[in-house]
Amino acid sequence: MVNSLSTAAEVRSRARSGELSAPTPGLAPGYVQANLVVLPKSLAFDFLLFCQRNPKPCPVLDVTDVGNPEPRLVAPGSDLRTDLPRYRVFQQGELIEETTDIRKIWRDDLVAFLIGCSFTFEAAMLKAGLPVRHLDEGKNVPMYRTTIPCVSAGSFAGRLVVSMRPLSPAQAIQAVQLTTPYTKAHGAPVHLGDPAAIGITQLDAPDFGDAVTLRDGEIPVFWACGVTTQATIGQTQPELAITHAPGHMFVTDLKEDAIL
Amino acid sequence: MVNSLSTAAEVRSRARSGELSAPTPGLAPGYVQANLVVLPKSLAFDFLLFCQRNPKPCPVLDVTDVGNPEPRLVAPGSDLRTDLPRYRVFQQGELIEETTDIRKIWRDDLVAFLIGCSFTFEAAMLKAGLPVRHLDEGKNVPMYRTTIPCVSAGSFAGRLVVSMRPLSPAQAIQAVQLTTPYTKAHGAPVHLGDPAAIGITQLDAPDFGDAVTLRDGEIPVFWACGVTTQATIGQTQPELAITHAPGHMFVTDLKEDAIL
Repeated sequence: MVNSLSTAAEVRSRARSGELSAPTPGLAPGYVQANLVVLPKSLAFDFLLFCQRNPKPCPVLDVTDVGNPEPRLVAPGSDLRTDLPRYRVFQQGELIEETTDIRKIWRDDLVAFLIGCSFTFEAAMLKAGLPVRHLDEGKNVPMYRTTIPCVSAGSFAGRLVVSMRPLSPAQAIQAVQLTTPYTKAHGAPVHLGDPAAIGITQLDAPDFGDAVTLRDGEIPVFWACGVTTQATIGQTQPELAITHAPGHMFVTDLKEDAIL
Repeated sequence: MVNSLSTAAEVRSRARSGELSAPTPGLAPGYVQANLVVLPKSLAFDFLLFCQRNPKPCPVLDVTDVGNPEPRLVAPGSDLRTDLPRYRVFQQGELIEETTDIRKIWRDDLVAFLIGCSFTFEAAMLKAGLPVRHLDEGKNVPMYRTTIPCVSAGSFAGRLVVSMRPLSPAQAIQAVQLTTPYTKAHGAPVHLGDPAAIGITQLDAPDFGDAVTLRDGEIPVFWACGVTTQATIGQTQPELAITHAPGHMFVTDLKEDAIL
């Protein structure tokens, strides 16, 4: 009964009970959704510093107290071990499991980071009448590894991953204006036009997600993407890391207009 | 020769050589100045999280790598142990020394945090023709402890300290608009009008800085203040903490318009 999932609390409750294990786009419209990254406390300072130094791909919405799975600032009373529809578990940077509940592997030394997500500014684009091509085509957003280096912090390093949306030049200008204030959801684009300038060789073969149609007169517009953190985990190879499964986000109690 | 200190690098060089031990307001106009907080690595995650959870008083500009006194993002090549005119050293939260050089007490486990400062938005207010009363009166800005709780992180907790500038209601509205984009320099005000509503009983007896004149028809306008971190250190009582001496800021290579 996806249609009844109109609030963040309802989505989290259905995920907790196991009724919901599907992706979250379109659920609880108007609520901010978030990427999840869980790491041991021993890596928490370096990762928070990585986010601090790379705020466009990694805008931090909330960080839990050590060992406590409740993100009390953005969703008091919720439980990050059960309230997402699906998780990915990494050991030494390798994906070892997808699961719908991480209570069994939760530890007292874990810290959870919630990081802003582009769904927020896409809602704003749609409200303003701008096209969001992958939504029109029923696909996942195309994402690409770039040659743009992130600023490293301790063992966390890597290159920026971007998402792409095709727009006319006039629409691209409007999208810059519109997304600029959403600093907690990746903010303004990082590049527009020539993909090769940031190391992307094939627009029709994204590294993550699906290719979408670039129409005549449109240019590709690129935003920093939260998948940057997952690429970083692959490179840093922490002993343990847990993330959301792509598209299966944590839905916070924050309203989209409240993070402007 | 204060008049010749027109760039950030010049100010830092004079502080390093010992020629400059005076406050920095007015030096290197156009460059962003910063609060300094140095703490042991064991407290660095909690303090960075405190900043993350309280971005209005504690907007982070840069955090050094552990043991490295170079803030490579905002002033590459500089040295935070020598390049401020004056420092304060705290043990267990107690001020034990003011000094112009912290090389002797620097340790391999120290992490330095640079935090935005209201000098940046004051420059913008002056450019827009708004009054900055304490500058007109040749005083330090009045600062007050409030009853507004900060969001705690680990052992870091405390109440918000605010700075105050008197403005007419129309000027206050303009100041909200003008300072909103300076999120790295405390951003928009946190309160305006009745001081008692945030626990301030005597406007003419600030907790830090100097009292200034409130003219007929003016209201007090309150901004979050970087002194919040020093109040927090007094409460948290870390084994060792080093800060700038009030008004003796670190001058970064960032231009004011570049942090908008």
